[in-house]
Amino acid sequence: MEVHLAVAKTNKYATSDSGDSVEVVERPNGGISVVMADGQSSGRGAKQISSLVVRKVISLLSEGVRDGAAARAASDYLFTERKGKVSATLNIVSIDMQTATMVITRNNPLPVLIASMDEVCAFDDESSPIGIYRDTRPLISELPLDPGLTVVLFTDGLVHAGTRTGQSLDVKTYLQTLVDDEVEEQWTDPQEIADSLLAHAVQLDHGRPVDDITVVVLSVTSKHSDSVRRMSVHLPL
Amino acid sequence: MEVHLAVAKTNKYATSDSGDSVEVVERPNGGISVVMADGQSSGRGAKQISSLVVRKVISLLSEGVRDGAAARAASDYLFTERKGKVSATLNIVSIDMQTATMVITRNNPLPVLIASMDEVCAFDDESSPIGIYRDTRPLISELPLDPGLTVVLFTDGLVHAGTRTGQSLDVKTYLQTLVDDEVEEQWTDPQEIADSLLAHAVQLDHGRPVDDITVVVLSVTSKHSDSVRRMSVHLPL
Repeated sequence: MEVHLAVAKTNKYATSDSGDSVEVVERPNGGISVVMADGQSSGRGAKQISSLVVRKVISLLSEGVRDGAAARAASDYLFTERKGKVSATLNIVSIDMQTATMVITRNNPLPVLIASMDEVCAFDDESSPIGIYRDTRPLISELPLDPGLTVVLFTDGLVHAGTRTGQSLDVKTYLQTLVDDEVEEQWTDPQEIADSLLAHAVQLDHGRPVDDITVVVLSVTSKHSDSVRRMSVHLPL
Repeated sequence: MEVHLAVAKTNKYATSDSGDSVEVVERPNGGISVVMADGQSSGRGAKQISSLVVRKVISLLSEGVRDGAAARAASDYLFTERKGKVSATLNIVSIDMQTATMVITRNNPLPVLIASMDEVCAFDDESSPIGIYRDTRPLISELPLDPGLTVVLFTDGLVHAGTRTGQSLDVKTYLQTLVDDEVEEQWTDPQEIADSLLAHAVQLDHGRPVDDITVVVLSVTSKHSDSVRRMSVHLPL
């Protein structure tokens, strides 16, 4: 089996700082984690918040702290640092080799979409951003690492795209279409899913995103693996 | 312009822990850094060392600490933690948007290869691993972000491949061939360079790498960019 993680990310139109932050980190007991945060508002202030949250979480995860505890620590940290005045959404998705599961951690009102062989469901129980209240707890869902499992997470720029013109992107329906179109074992490349969702959203905003947009897609495939771990980053200058 | 970073990484044959660690982190003032460390010996102990070094460096870089200071801090930290008994090599390559340069930091006897439009040169001044002595300083080289610039760095598994059978991989010659074959502005994909170097080394070891191998390639291209930042990770399970 192989896990393929893909991220596509763009800034709000005409801003140089994205309020979204995403980092990937290796887990000390095997596997990887991707951490995504969206800081309140946009621009430099939001960037500082999301970056502070993601940094705290990856630093804890890389020391072996479990995802739920890392999310709670980030919440307490942000609450303390900013005196409960600033919020951020936080998502962690981990491939945990100790438990052979995918662990999804949410402090985000937005759902995480989970596609398995033939259906798409939303992990959408009520969940709050961190930073505003004491004792904010994350919701956690744990899934076995089965081939065909795909999860999609995103920041609110994706679902708010097009709202100015009364349009919007129904991410779940979009994913369902992909799943329905799948030929057996021929899963769409996660990077293509992420790119296409992002492109669709940018199009709804007429090429000028009204908010920062980040899309993260993780897939487990039955692909025969050559034991080589690969990572690739494209950074527009 | 666009920066494309690619990593290919494999473990020593029949070991589950790689003594090499690589992480990529966003720089708070713009750009990204890739940090690569190789811990002394192999297996679990080496993994702990390289992971400790990389963690320290990315944590400092993400707080805005400059690369040279982060490398020195990691050196002092490893020296203190392990009482000067354990060494690790350390490389940092940063795309620094504040200075619009690529910053190459080396605490590694192995060279970093730098290919520009028509030639390949080696940044190979004498440099020591960290952890053994006090006051180990990194060597730093700073280059303008010009299209066509490609740097290649690697751990010693790459150059030691094949030594058991009296063969070896001449990375510089290999890169020179690539540069000579380039059609104008048609640079080889960094992931292809990394994959091909790694595959070549594994072949010299008859499919059973005698050491952990990591190859990192960064290229600056004049490619028209769509303002989307992309990241992709393939993790064999």
